[in-house]
Amino acid sequence: MEHTSKQYEAELRDLKEKLLLMGGRIEELIKDAMQALVNRDTDLANKCIDRDHQVNRLELEIDELCLKLLALRQPTAVDLRFITLGLKIVADLERVGDLGVNIAERAIELNQEPALKPYIDLPKMAQDVQGMLKQALDAFVREDVDLAQEVLNSDDEIDELNHKIFEELVDYMGRDRSNIKRACRLMFISRYLERIADHATNVAEMVIFMVQGKDVRHLHSFRA
Amino acid sequence: MEHTSKQYEAELRDLKEKLLLMGGRIEELIKDAMQALVNRDTDLANKCIDRDHQVNRLELEIDELCLKLLALRQPTAVDLRFITLGLKIVADLERVGDLGVNIAERAIELNQEPALKPYIDLPKMAQDVQGMLKQALDAFVREDVDLAQEVLNSDDEIDELNHKIFEELVDYMGRDRSNIKRACRLMFISRYLERIADHATNVAEMVIFMVQGKDVRHLHSFRA
Repeated sequence: MEHTSKQYEAELRDLKEKLLLMGGRIEELIKDAMQALVNRDTDLANKCIDRDHQVNRLELEIDELCLKLLALRQPTAVDLRFITLGLKIVADLERVGDLGVNIAERAIELNQEPALKPYIDLPKMAQDVQGMLKQALDAFVREDVDLAQEVLNSDDEIDELNHKIFEELVDYMGRDRSNIKRACRLMFISRYLERIADHATNVAEMVIFMVQGKDVRHLHSFRA
Repeated sequence: MEHTSKQYEAELRDLKEKLLLMGGRIEELIKDAMQALVNRDTDLANKCIDRDHQVNRLELEIDELCLKLLALRQPTAVDLRFITLGLKIVADLERVGDLGVNIAERAIELNQEPALKPYIDLPKMAQDVQGMLKQALDAFVREDVDLAQEVLNSDDEIDELNHKIFEELVDYMGRDRSNIKRACRLMFISRYLERIADHATNVAEMVIFMVQGKDVRHLHSFRA
């Protein structure tokens, strides 16, 4: 029994570590995809796209681990909540990885044409979004409600930044029609970053739910 | 024992029904949001936004039901897979509901300006996407791999339609700068629809995984 319980603890720890590992890989993916955009580095963008497989493999591993824990360990109420949220969070993370790939794809397209303008707001937005994602995952493994709350507070700033970038890009398109396609692609990147922030917010809400047993999902305003 | 087992069966049936109910509500939401766009009906768009609460409530109910089944029933391997996929699918559905709300939001913005052009491709795309979502959910509750496979086959058409709409809207923007903002909003709607198709694809992949125990997720090409 003692032995089994230790094994169980180890498996739970393994789950946390794998989630953090996956989160770390995804942060790097986003960072590199943005670097590929800013430095016009198509090689790096292609590497980002290739690396998505690693992230996806981690998702499958984590899913399997959760299923195993549920099937064999008959977890307590608290652990059950943790494991089932693990299943949901890993799906959010996988989507974030896809969005990182989408950024890399748009970067490759943009690198085939002259640069539209120096990027200032987008890298700033990307940095904020990466911070949110990291905080949300840390909040999950530490079961830290305050940290999760910080993530929720950041979401509005991201929406504002996204709106500002939208108006700026519309302005660019109006000035010269040759800007239009490139500006559209940048607009998509801004939306991808906003979606990543939404996923981080999702995870943060689930953490609060897990710790307080109170569901804050769907309490605040809709996200564009 | 007989009694408990019957109750358990009833709970599993309840889970399937609630998922289908949520799917039905979401299909309606998307249909009405598109109608609000095409008919320039801002009242209907606002109603769509209000209705999202119902969808979100269903998500919470389904989550609770899944947790209860996992905690109290010690499901068999097959049921365990079904219930944990239920948890994932409900998260996909909730996102689709949000995307329906996003369509309604863009419709409201678009209705404040003159119509850009008659919508032909977007309603067609919306119809296809709704069909995919319905098929994916039916495939889940019937555990029908062939139906799930059909959903996967449709995804490429949607990507093509999205690409065609993109080029067309870029062309509109180039013709007259007063078209730019409206064309951007329509472009977003096209992306929302594409994302809904991605979620349907996700669900279909999970169904194949559930039935065949073979994970087809992450086997086919990345989605933009």
